[in-house]
Amino acid sequence: MTTNEKALELHKEWNGKIDTTPKCKISSREDLALAYTPGVAEPCKVIAEDKEAAYTYTIKSNTVAVVSDGSAVLGLGNIGAHAAMPVMEGKAVLFKEFGNVNAFPICLDTQDTEEIIKTVVNIAPAFGGINLEDISAPRCFEIEERLNELLDIPVFHDDQHGTAIVVLAGIINALKVTGKDKESCEVVINGAGSAGIAITKLLLTYGFKNVTMCDKKGIISKDYEGLNWMQKSMTNVTNLSGKTGSLADALKGADIFVGVSAPNIVTAEMVKSMNKDAIIFAMANPVPEIMPDVAKAAGAKVVGTGRSDFPNQVNNVVAFPGIFKGALEGRASVITEEMKLAAANAIANLVTDEQLNENFILPEAFNPDVAEVVSKAVKDNIKPDGTNIKSK
Amino acid sequence: MTTNEKALELHKEWNGKIDTTPKCKISSREDLALAYTPGVAEPCKVIAEDKEAAYTYTIKSNTVAVVSDGSAVLGLGNIGAHAAMPVMEGKAVLFKEFGNVNAFPICLDTQDTEEIIKTVVNIAPAFGGINLEDISAPRCFEIEERLNELLDIPVFHDDQHGTAIVVLAGIINALKVTGKDKESCEVVINGAGSAGIAITKLLLTYGFKNVTMCDKKGIISKDYEGLNWMQKSMTNVTNLSGKTGSLADALKGADIFVGVSAPNIVTAEMVKSMNKDAIIFAMANPVPEIMPDVAKAAGAKVVGTGRSDFPNQVNNVVAFPGIFKGALEGRASVITEEMKLAAANAIANLVTDEQLNENFILPEAFNPDVAEVVSKAVKDNIKPDGTNIKSK
Repeated sequence: MTTNEKALELHKEWNGKIDTTPKCKISSREDLALAYTPGVAEPCKVIAEDKEAAYTYTIKSNTVAVVSDGSAVLGLGNIGAHAAMPVMEGKAVLFKEFGNVNAFPICLDTQDTEEIIKTVVNIAPAFGGINLEDISAPRCFEIEERLNELLDIPVFHDDQHGTAIVVLAGIINALKVTGKDKESCEVVINGAGSAGIAITKLLLTYGFKNVTMCDKKGIISKDYEGLNWMQKSMTNVTNLSGKTGSLADALKGADIFVGVSAPNIVTAEMVKSMNKDAIIFAMANPVPEIMPDVAKAAGAKVVGTGRSDFPNQVNNVVAFPGIFKGALEGRASVITEEMKLAAANAIANLVTDEQLNENFILPEAFNPDVAEVVSKAVKDNIKPDGTNIKSK
Repeated sequence: MTTNEKALELHKEWNGKIDTTPKCKISSREDLALAYTPGVAEPCKVIAEDKEAAYTYTIKSNTVAVVSDGSAVLGLGNIGAHAAMPVMEGKAVLFKEFGNVNAFPICLDTQDTEEIIKTVVNIAPAFGGINLEDISAPRCFEIEERLNELLDIPVFHDDQHGTAIVVLAGIINALKVTGKDKESCEVVINGAGSAGIAITKLLLTYGFKNVTMCDKKGIISKDYEGLNWMQKSMTNVTNLSGKTGSLADALKGADIFVGVSAPNIVTAEMVKSMNKDAIIFAMANPVPEIMPDVAKAAGAKVVGTGRSDFPNQVNNVVAFPGIFKGALEGRASVITEEMKLAAANAIANLVTDEQLNENFILPEAFNPDVAEVVSKAVKDNIKPDGTNIKSK
């Protein structure tokens, strides 16, 4: 049986991957009176007086909604809310298994931006955080931004920021391995969807100066036609020298390639045209932009992919469970750029000096320290003056 | 420590009464590949082709949303979404403990009817049923009706129907104890909110001919001013002789009193004015409309209350877990009147002839057979021609 056949069989057997499990057992009338009526009225009254008490008496303190509209699921595209459920349930499983954070899948039977925003605002009371997932660009940018304005709990689109944080962590360590310097590196990002844009933004925030984005038609510049509003706004901070041309043109003399795009679109020749000791993140799934052995043979020093059967897997699971764990424990109201940078540094630092080499730049997904270390980094960056805690 | 103090302490300790628990453990890369990417794409693709497959591969088959807007919580009134959470979490606990049905609290930060309807429709894909809870009348009637039209999963307002089903079960057995006949009985319902109206409707469906509703100002007739649209519609099927007057007037010569109203509003004199072997359900909480010993001394034969420290407790927990269990297992798209009557009869029949007496007309909440028996009764009433299964 192939992995896919086995996965289908198992999903049938599981018949849903998440149970809701009582933390209080009900085996007597007294239990009922304490967990339900009449006793339950007491925490209700306290919360009615002070909404903050919801964090003391309800699941809000440790529960995340995994929200999708099914518009951009895995590589499957717009498959809708029902078909997105297995992914969102899987994400909920990972939250619990890796971060001990409770999570529940909310798959929305609408793809209207305003309705999505309203619905998430309406259901927010039960949750301490919102993880947006597999929502197509550019709607995902507006939905996240508006929700962060409207809600006093953190809203985090993992396809954007989770990916960006792990890529940055990998790049931080790849710079150490190659001796390159962020300020002088030329970076090419291929793919201008949610992940590509978020990676670009976070690299700029981290201190990279020269980042060029490419899309299907080549280098994105102010002259590129058909950009959405977010891509347009990226032309103000990327490709400052105004290059035009193909991906191959962009890669000439570049130091770092980050692909969140399509299989086999980078050739050995393109890698050869890059600077010495090139760093390649080829994250198209399941077939990367260039196979690691081809890239290495063409001179690349560090190669990462999205796959677990090659070295240097870029896997969001080292980021989002710890990020939400920290944000929830520290009662952050937003996930700030500082927290994202701190998380990336923390992930990078989990690779010890002894471990670090071109084939080991990122911690393993099952490294038992990851969630705790990332969580601490996030918590330490919740400002003591409370600016990150809107509701206090 | 009082029960209330202990309940508050325990709620703090629990810090939320529901965990989300993975049914699949993730302890290896292979586990990840099966429960998440790439394997998870398989069930997604199957559901994208056929939405029905969501019942095979996701939590939808056994998961209920416990939905409230916090507008009419317990006896506390309009305390809002956050303060309603402990009740909805408690309800989710009862679903699991009594019916082995997964349930998740959805507390809505809106009390606008249209927004509530839209929000519930939008989040429905994850759920196999919607349990509405503690939503004020008359909005609750419209919300339930509209949602049942819009959704292909059952929508059930437990404050209405759960209560009505258990009251009817109690009355069925009280009729046996007193030898009264439903067709000739005079019934008085005091309280014209969601529970009072649902009880009235179900008693009429069951075959009672003479039901009179009362509210704060007395007997409800076509002349009663200030009725909402639902109360107005009830004047077409109740109080057909057009009585007017006070609750005391209504009770003269009545056989059955059902109170879902206020403490201590029925006097011994009123009970004395009722027919011989009167049946009293005094369900105001925590202080009933009349104390059982007072009612008994005044001639009542059977007295039920909402309290567990008196005989004949009317407790919804004998109904809703089994009702949803049966509806989910049988894939009903609505909870029909037939299913409600079947559930009431099943609950009544759980009291054996040997057990049945004026102080034992309802099964205990912890009777281990209840959910299974009620579930079977509901399932057996899902029509084989599929008329109850909208989505097939």
